[in-house]
Amino acid sequence: MPPKKYYAIGVDLGGTKISAGIVSSSGKVILREKIPTMVALGGKTVLNRLALAISLLFKKAPPAVRKEIRGIGIGIPGMVEHEKGIVHEPPNIPALNGVNVKKFIQRRFKKPAFIANDANAHALGEHTFGAGKGTQNMVCITLGTGLGGGIILNGKLYTGSFENAGELGHIVIRKEGIPCNCGNTGCVEAYVGANFIAERARKAIKAGTKSSVVKLVNGDLSKITPHLLAKAARQGDRYARQLWAEVGEEIGTAIVSIANILGPEKVIVSGGVSRAGDILFKPMIKEFKKRSFKYLRTRIKIVPGKLLDDAGILGSSSLVFKQS
Amino acid sequence: MPPKKYYAIGVDLGGTKISAGIVSSSGKVILREKIPTMVALGGKTVLNRLALAISLLFKKAPPAVRKEIRGIGIGIPGMVEHEKGIVHEPPNIPALNGVNVKKFIQRRFKKPAFIANDANAHALGEHTFGAGKGTQNMVCITLGTGLGGGIILNGKLYTGSFENAGELGHIVIRKEGIPCNCGNTGCVEAYVGANFIAERARKAIKAGTKSSVVKLVNGDLSKITPHLLAKAARQGDRYARQLWAEVGEEIGTAIVSIANILGPEKVIVSGGVSRAGDILFKPMIKEFKKRSFKYLRTRIKIVPGKLLDDAGILGSSSLVFKQS
Repeated sequence: MPPKKYYAIGVDLGGTKISAGIVSSSGKVILREKIPTMVALGGKTVLNRLALAISLLFKKAPPAVRKEIRGIGIGIPGMVEHEKGIVHEPPNIPALNGVNVKKFIQRRFKKPAFIANDANAHALGEHTFGAGKGTQNMVCITLGTGLGGGIILNGKLYTGSFENAGELGHIVIRKEGIPCNCGNTGCVEAYVGANFIAERARKAIKAGTKSSVVKLVNGDLSKITPHLLAKAARQGDRYARQLWAEVGEEIGTAIVSIANILGPEKVIVSGGVSRAGDILFKPMIKEFKKRSFKYLRTRIKIVPGKLLDDAGILGSSSLVFKQS
Repeated sequence: MPPKKYYAIGVDLGGTKISAGIVSSSGKVILREKIPTMVALGGKTVLNRLALAISLLFKKAPPAVRKEIRGIGIGIPGMVEHEKGIVHEPPNIPALNGVNVKKFIQRRFKKPAFIANDANAHALGEHTFGAGKGTQNMVCITLGTGLGGGIILNGKLYTGSFENAGELGHIVIRKEGIPCNCGNTGCVEAYVGANFIAERARKAIKAGTKSSVVKLVNGDLSKITPHLLAKAARQGDRYARQLWAEVGEEIGTAIVSIANILGPEKVIVSGGVSRAGDILFKPMIKEFKKRSFKYLRTRIKIVPGKLLDDAGILGSSSLVFKQS
């Protein structure tokens, strides 16, 4: 007899939208909802929108699924006291600062709720359903606006003594480097965040560098994105290729510090900016191998994430599956 | 009734000497031995010297102590497969490469033996008996010829998937920095190793910098050591103070990366070079606070080690106490 199927709701609470889904224990998203967060209307509204997304899923679920939903997992940007359930200074949803989201959801839905930092949930998702399946120790780097991270040690999410572990974006790669939003200088995030990559290209082009990305944006440099720079690079644009190679080297350097501290089996690199693919991964892995102990070069695997667009929902749902 | 006392033998196997001791479960070293390692005579000799140091302790131990010795812990430089007991490429004892030291000792003494990388054993010692007592998550940095490290997570020594975790000396602080012995560039160890500190002072003095350390070595610059540079700094020498401040800043920068990855309660800084004291710790802690998230500045404590000269013996003995 096959093991009985059960389900979890996974919610990715972002500054702009709330993505939620019902996920089966085998990692399939069987129903989805996406609604605006409406941050400008304040904390109460955000909580009600969160509840709305979840209740829409409960309503739409077939009865056989509904009664097998074991809990609700929520990924939230910022620092999360995950046992208590309190959110601290979520960067794009300031009104939720200090709010106990876990208690609110548990009361409303009479189901166990689990919350975590979104990058941590993402890492747990890759461990449960994606590229990190079966590993004991792994690290997940999420490339987007910033560089987020999550760490799985001995098969469990590791959040440290102060719930801040896995802030991989703030690994210093250049002591005398450029300022980072966090107040530090030379953080890897300051060199590889999506806006920084685009801005770097804009500056170079304004200074006279030739690149085919200019054509892709019809001359409107404000429209340059990492996505288009990747497209230009894949089409053979020399400047764009060089830019991605440098981004890869910065991240590869940070991975060396991670590898020397944690010695994980895998480093998973995911998130929107990672979709650049080989033009990013090849120089990144090359830089890692160049800088790491010989013994580790072939042992530690650096691989792309597998959850892609569903990373938010699957990651958050895994908070439930890992507990039950 | 007080808990019954029991004992362990702790051995610090170095490239020059073997330090061994009988340690009580409360962390007191009650007997010591120190004999030369005789590395030049080959692997068999080294193993026999190791056995000799241990058997001398067994012989000298009062019978009441001898029968309560629960095991033998050995700290060895280099990579150690601690469960199997095999040593890989120990930097100063190349003849032990690939040798199963654990099996050898267990057969010889009919007692459980535990081996670990020496910096890892040191960290476990600080956790068991020293500055890390009672912490769940802590990191120990050992400053000497190199920068060694050990990580305790959830109360246990963490060695990662490939027994290399805690190689904190090879955290990159300057991507385009100076070469390190490991082949990488810009590793923190390359800036703060004992020889590098001394060499830096020599170069500056040869280039015309004034420093009172010249008097302390009677003009023989080859005799400059971190110890003497610390003495000069404490006596008010401006150059030596500046040098120590820079060393502190390099280490403080590496600690920021450690803190952002691991979020430990404490970072313990120990080892010979750490005896410089405040002239090192003040700039190190200042740099950490300047660069770290506000939330962590007061939470993560950076403190000196407490085991001092007994760190090797106590650390190795703790391998036994943590198991029994």
